[in-house]
Amino acid sequence: MTLLSTLPPMRDSIVGVVGGGQLARMLHQEAVPSTIDVCYLVDDAEDPVAQVSPSWMVGSALSLDDLRRFADTVDVVTFEHEVVSLDALFELEWDGVLLRPGAAAFATVADKQRMRGALAGAGLPVPPSRIPGSPEEAADIVDRDGVQVLKVAHGGYDGRGTHVVADPERAAHLLAMVQGSGGVALMEPFLDLELELAVLVVRRPGGEVVIYDPVRTIQVDGQCRRIDAPAPVDAVTASTARDLAQRAAETVDAVGVLAVELFVADGEMMINELAARPHNSGHHTLDGAVTSQFSNHLRAVLDLPLGDPSLTSPVVVTANVIARDVHVDPRDRVGAALDVDRSARVHLYGKTPRPDRKVGHVTVCDDDHDRAVERVRRVVEALGGQEVPA
Amino acid sequence: MTLLSTLPPMRDSIVGVVGGGQLARMLHQEAVPSTIDVCYLVDDAEDPVAQVSPSWMVGSALSLDDLRRFADTVDVVTFEHEVVSLDALFELEWDGVLLRPGAAAFATVADKQRMRGALAGAGLPVPPSRIPGSPEEAADIVDRDGVQVLKVAHGGYDGRGTHVVADPERAAHLLAMVQGSGGVALMEPFLDLELELAVLVVRRPGGEVVIYDPVRTIQVDGQCRRIDAPAPVDAVTASTARDLAQRAAETVDAVGVLAVELFVADGEMMINELAARPHNSGHHTLDGAVTSQFSNHLRAVLDLPLGDPSLTSPVVVTANVIARDVHVDPRDRVGAALDVDRSARVHLYGKTPRPDRKVGHVTVCDDDHDRAVERVRRVVEALGGQEVPA
Repeated sequence: MTLLSTLPPMRDSIVGVVGGGQLARMLHQEAVPSTIDVCYLVDDAEDPVAQVSPSWMVGSALSLDDLRRFADTVDVVTFEHEVVSLDALFELEWDGVLLRPGAAAFATVADKQRMRGALAGAGLPVPPSRIPGSPEEAADIVDRDGVQVLKVAHGGYDGRGTHVVADPERAAHLLAMVQGSGGVALMEPFLDLELELAVLVVRRPGGEVVIYDPVRTIQVDGQCRRIDAPAPVDAVTASTARDLAQRAAETVDAVGVLAVELFVADGEMMINELAARPHNSGHHTLDGAVTSQFSNHLRAVLDLPLGDPSLTSPVVVTANVIARDVHVDPRDRVGAALDVDRSARVHLYGKTPRPDRKVGHVTVCDDDHDRAVERVRRVVEALGGQEVPA
Repeated sequence: MTLLSTLPPMRDSIVGVVGGGQLARMLHQEAVPSTIDVCYLVDDAEDPVAQVSPSWMVGSALSLDDLRRFADTVDVVTFEHEVVSLDALFELEWDGVLLRPGAAAFATVADKQRMRGALAGAGLPVPPSRIPGSPEEAADIVDRDGVQVLKVAHGGYDGRGTHVVADPERAAHLLAMVQGSGGVALMEPFLDLELELAVLVVRRPGGEVVIYDPVRTIQVDGQCRRIDAPAPVDAVTASTARDLAQRAAETVDAVGVLAVELFVADGEMMINELAARPHNSGHHTLDGAVTSQFSNHLRAVLDLPLGDPSLTSPVVVTANVIARDVHVDPRDRVGAALDVDRSARVHLYGKTPRPDRKVGHVTVCDDDHDRAVERVRRVVEALGGQEVPA
């Protein structure tokens, strides 16, 4: 086994980000003032980050060859999505490539089955779930225990790969599809959620962390539509959420941002999902926190001191801009949206609209929660995005 | 004469920025979230903006051919420095290139003699100045009226091109040098300044403006070292400053950011300098205002609604990072600086240090002015920059 490489001084270090979507684009925005040198592995020369950065390479994150070629040009590799060959990451690390987070941490987080196992093994609360071995078993579970949520273990995002299933035959059909493509699915009882929270933890290689205030996330069809910071919860709930998030980050040995999505149901808090990268639930930090999640992710990856995660305003509300169809392009409506609210921050990702595609977000800082929600709703409406929940 | 071109819808508009320095780099940072497409005319492929943007062209802003080649690839042209052939701008505009600000506005602002004339003609207060016709006349002025400030009319910046002269022979020598290179110089009595202020006005083509709060600027040897926002002045002084700035913007028909530098001496306020572009005195707006000067400049150039210029914190202090020598590179000291203050925002420009070269800035937001000043002083010290005035 070769020795793991170490990092040259910051000025000579190139951070390699696997992925070229909007998270990469926002990382680039935050890399500019810091003079942190970042190169991106993109699927396509039209990807959001390739429109705004001079440093990228086209390649597939599912190909060991492409990942190896990319890793050769950078000093440390990090991630902006999970659709990465996990086997390839272990190979790279074995070859001496510095990954932050490491292959084991990333793989644990990227695979729901491993993730749930690791958290449960550390005594952390997770929703009860099962791995049906066959379509028949999936049908039996629904038949016996009622409505289930069926989730692919690896590769789902934004509600894709997650299905609420009430019909045993449909459960069997979905599982057959997942297994047919070599995948694994989890099934868990459909919970009557009181609240969904998210907490971002940023962790340096040595274990130092900063933790952002918990936020409330509001989903429609499994897709996040609105983020309320801080979450409207009491101090005990907030503290429990922060504590669970920090323990999750330690359990999986996270480096960089770990987004921890939490369910509150029947008065119990459980860890539903993890993401070992900057995350949609932290977009409000670009305009509403002293240090954004993107800046802190880059700092953590380079083992630099982490920045203050405090909010800069009593209330920060972010809404996603979800396209309606191909004919309504928010990029054509920026003027109208800015006319509606001169203090709103409109972020668009350089993506062509398609139905249900996330193409941007809007953040407002305010003293009053209800007013903030109303403001983002009006701006997103002016941009032609799907309605933001009130 | 051809018709002036008009601008396509925002999504199809490319903004051409003449210049590739740190101001262009910060414009790029703010262009990323807005999906405003920007291309830069840079002197060199290593320029600060060329390190972080994929869209630039190497060429000289003093060459009509290069400017024309650049203008052909964009829909509207704006500026990040004044070292531009003013004759070329009038040619371009005649050819139908859309310039914002226009050639006349830019040329008036870029040439101190024209600028002073235009402002005085509109009844606005400017320091008394003369244009010596010969070295002998320059010597006579110092001999008769005492210490003078001699300034080149076009092309000076950051204290370069400005000299405090007490010796008649030196005045003659300096003027001979300026005239020898085809330039013009102004001489004005050395004023005992109580205060220097700056006000940024952002103006749309139709005349709509937003005005940032006046800031105090603190210079050392003509180079700005510190910016205090808001300026510690009473409401009447602040209102006078805003009013003068707005009238200056109207007088020169500015579009985009107009930075207005004001002298306060003997209880009188005078307009000392204008710059028709984003300006060092507005760097605090990146981290300490709802909308940055860079974002508002791009909006104004595209005739989009302007954003709220309000400060987001009671006190915002910015200090420039001025290099000491070639051996101390602030890029090697980012970790140490962030360790000193986890809430400070460190901006570096990707420039190699040389004595007295401005290579970055640091901003802190605070409730208390004195503490903010102390904080930026310590961070700049940790970065190895020249001392920030207390």
